Amino acid sequence: MKLVLSRKSHNSLSDQIVQQIAGRIQSSMLTGGEKLPSIRQLSVDAGISFLTVHKAYKKLEQAGMVKSIQGKGVYVERPAQKEAAENSFDWQLSIPAYLTRSSFHSRPKTTYSFDYSAMHSGLLPTIYLADQLTEMLKAEPAILGTYGDVQGDALTREAFSTYFQKQLGLSSAADDLIMTTGLHQGIELIAKTLIGPGDVVITEAPTYPGVLDILMNRGAQVIPIAMDEEGMRADLLAQVAKTYHPKAIYMNPTFQNPTGRSMSERRRKEVLYQAQLHGMFIIEDDSWSELYFDEKPPPKSIKAFDDEGRILFLKGFSKALAPGIRVGTIFAEGPFKKLLLSAKASSDLGTPLLTQRAVLPFLTSDRMMQHFAKLRFALELRRDKAISILSASFDSSVSWTVPEGGLNIWVTFPESVSTVELYEYCLRHDLSFLPGHVCYPYEPASHHLRLTYSLLSERDLEQGLHAFVSLANDFINNRLESGC
Amino acid sequence: MKLVLSRKSHNSLSDQIVQQIAGRIQSSMLTGGEKLPSIRQLSVDAGISFLTVHKAYKKLEQAGMVKSIQGKGVYVERPAQKEAAENSFDWQLSIPAYLTRSSFHSRPKTTYSFDYSAMHSGLLPTIYLADQLTEMLKAEPAILGTYGDVQGDALTREAFSTYFQKQLGLSSAADDLIMTTGLHQGIELIAKTLIGPGDVVITEAPTYPGVLDILMNRGAQVIPIAMDEEGMRADLLAQVAKTYHPKAIYMNPTFQNPTGRSMSERRRKEVLYQAQLHGMFIIEDDSWSELYFDEKPPPKSIKAFDDEGRILFLKGFSKALAPGIRVGTIFAEGPFKKLLLSAKASSDLGTPLLTQRAVLPFLTSDRMMQHFAKLRFALELRRDKAISILSASFDSSVSWTVPEGGLNIWVTFPESVSTVELYEYCLRHDLSFLPGHVCYPYEPASHHLRLTYSLLSERDLEQGLHAFVSLANDFINNRLESGC
Repeated sequence: MKLVLSRKSHNSLSDQIVQQIAGRIQSSMLTGGEKLPSIRQLSVDAGISFLTVHKAYKKLEQAGMVKSIQGKGVYVERPAQKEAAENSFDWQLSIPAYLTRSSFHSRPKTTYSFDYSAMHSGLLPTIYLADQLTEMLKAEPAILGTYGDVQGDALTREAFSTYFQKQLGLSSAADDLIMTTGLHQGIELIAKTLIGPGDVVITEAPTYPGVLDILMNRGAQVIPIAMDEEGMRADLLAQVAKTYHPKAIYMNPTFQNPTGRSMSERRRKEVLYQAQLHGMFIIEDDSWSELYFDEKPPPKSIKAFDDEGRILFLKGFSKALAPGIRVGTIFAEGPFKKLLLSAKASSDLGTPLLTQRAVLPFLTSDRMMQHFAKLRFALELRRDKAISILSASFDSSVSWTVPEGGLNIWVTFPESVSTVELYEYCLRHDLSFLPGHVCYPYEPASHHLRLTYSLLSERDLEQGLHAFVSLANDFINNRLESGC
Repeated sequence: MKLVLSRKSHNSLSDQIVQQIAGRIQSSMLTGGEKLPSIRQLSVDAGISFLTVHKAYKKLEQAGMVKSIQGKGVYVERPAQKEAAENSFDWQLSIPAYLTRSSFHSRPKTTYSFDYSAMHSGLLPTIYLADQLTEMLKAEPAILGTYGDVQGDALTREAFSTYFQKQLGLSSAADDLIMTTGLHQGIELIAKTLIGPGDVVITEAPTYPGVLDILMNRGAQVIPIAMDEEGMRADLLAQVAKTYHPKAIYMNPTFQNPTGRSMSERRRKEVLYQAQLHGMFIIEDDSWSELYFDEKPPPKSIKAFDDEGRILFLKGFSKALAPGIRVGTIFAEGPFKKLLLSAKASSDLGTPLLTQRAVLPFLTSDRMMQHFAKLRFALELRRDKAISILSASFDSSVSWTVPEGGLNIWVTFPESVSTVELYEYCLRHDLSFLPGHVCYPYEPASHHLRLTYSLLSERDLEQGLHAFVSLANDFINNRLESGC
């Protein structure tokens, strides 16, 4: 056995022997029952004292890793582990981890990015926000030195509550709100509190990939339910609820991510009714109900019809306002709120006060509604542009949603077209979108994709869409020609 | 059966009947086998049509909640659930939740607060930070409009990495760092990735209560190991590691929270050695190694001796710098880092860019080291003041640690004294501390408490400590007199 020992190391020579032998046992280089070199032989080989080796073997024995058998020698005791060691960090690979699914991929950046549901910087009021924040820091630098409340800053909660009442028709008390670091964290806090191994949760199919990561990492069984023009199908929901006794439904009823579809008011009530009937929570994700293109706003949130605390209502303004700030809230009524507060405390002790106060001036000013009006206009133009290019470029085998708000279009190709392969193809041409399979939990459909029309400048959007339809048509035609 | 029906409701009359009956079944007001009123009787009682009631009963039957038996009537089908309904939110109480333990209590605020491990605002560089942040916003308002990277802002990671190298002797690459919302979130991300039901994790006894919440909410078995003057006892660690095969050790070796004790360098190496021997991670929480009172700094972090990615090293500056900002980092090497990134993405998609950039000017300026020098001086004075008042006021039955850095003193009373009761007593006199039992996982010792000497002004600290020793002595004497 060749050991690499150093007299200059922090560790004693005998500890170095122990580590190296233990490492070999852990990495299966030495397996159970194998005989170690004798103490005398190892001390000669390594040029160290008999006593040093003796001490090391004694320690290995005390740790239960080897066994000394009188008159025979020293044998490896512990059954070998799975992974073979390649480098010094590889022991980590043999440790079981709990994240079964994640949407975290460091996706390559492209010139024509249709894959991130975010806003082009020209559409955001960053200079106004920066001015307001500067004023605030001048007047009250102490906010930097103050721990935020776990539930969230009282002033910011008041402002959200007022906004909810005025703009969304929701009668929320400031005390019913918990501030979060982005809306996404709100989903995570709810899941951490409510969902555990084997619990059943219903989602729309397709759904926001982030929620699938969260639910599946909690060990949940996710049942995706198909949508029609009005949103999640109520007949399927009733059936699933009766059979599987789900704990919750996650939904994004208004301008849904990824499809851009909105749920009808009738369907919203039916979903609430099923939740009441079967004792479920509804996790209602309202990311962008302000961003409607019709003259009149979308239907009221499901929360507006809830008087039993069935709905855990989530709101965030990161995307539409300031992605560098990331403030969201959970509106929760009833005793469950206290558990959510525990989950928040256990997660990060509370959202930073600075970011909460940074959105406050905006929330309480007219500027907010003017900003949304501007966004609605700009996004509608972009949607129209996108739809007109798709319509002019694809034959009837390709279809898409025409969203009445939000940031995304859901494109459906014939079942034989893999958007995962199309994605790889487009990446090589400096263009990206979200392959649709990540929006399904177990047996994903892979002939859809999500196009976000909000991230690029108007010029890049137009050029990028022309590039996209041309790449997609090339890809489909090449497949046909090669007989796939 | 008295139903409250409204023709003005969003819901149809038959849905209202369904909800109210379903609610009674779920809340045990109606139990399995119970007979519902006949359709005719209910329609007469409630003054509504026969058909409406019929429709409601049909729906309840479809939902599997009641059963209609030909010629006999309609019976409650579902076995009753546990909790009785008191108001419309009480159905929530019957839903099993997953948070088994939490340190979130909205503790009452007192004049003499010794319970929060935080810094008096006069000790913080808030005005300097506010100025720097203002400059930055003026130069680059776009940071408000930019999504932070999931791993964290590259510039901020560079700055942390440089700080680690210069000040802590840690050779970290910026790519090995993951930015978090406070150090606490770092622990949570590690736990979410590594720890699941039944996994064994070792902590010091006593330990930081927040880590117990996190671990126990993940379903871990926490084994607390007693400390001596050098820190966690290595002999007990070896024994526990051999018997229970823990996945990780959480420790706060330098100026430990809550005891204020520091682990010797020899012990640090022994702990690392045990981790190597038994294939464990060490979660090393370095909240305040900068805040030492001796002339020379404390021993190097365990991470400094680690070349296998055994140590997940956590650093945060919220307490010592700006609690309103809350930025921390995990220094992790090896393949495990990628899993941590997934956990971060799944938790909140990344720490806000604003808060990361807000600490950046400080991290890269000399101001930082000047600030720490000032803090060391101020905290040492406070510690001395606290120790002198304790020494002058308690007899030998009460003892305490004399921390060589950090914010906390750990006070030990005779075993017969309950610091939970003492806490209640002090609260009535407008004074608070942290009762020690929250620092143990299962069978807490309840004769300790933690006093934080950093939160109050110098004047309040002195007055508060005099009040504390006087209250504690009164409490103990009253107990003796009443023969408890």
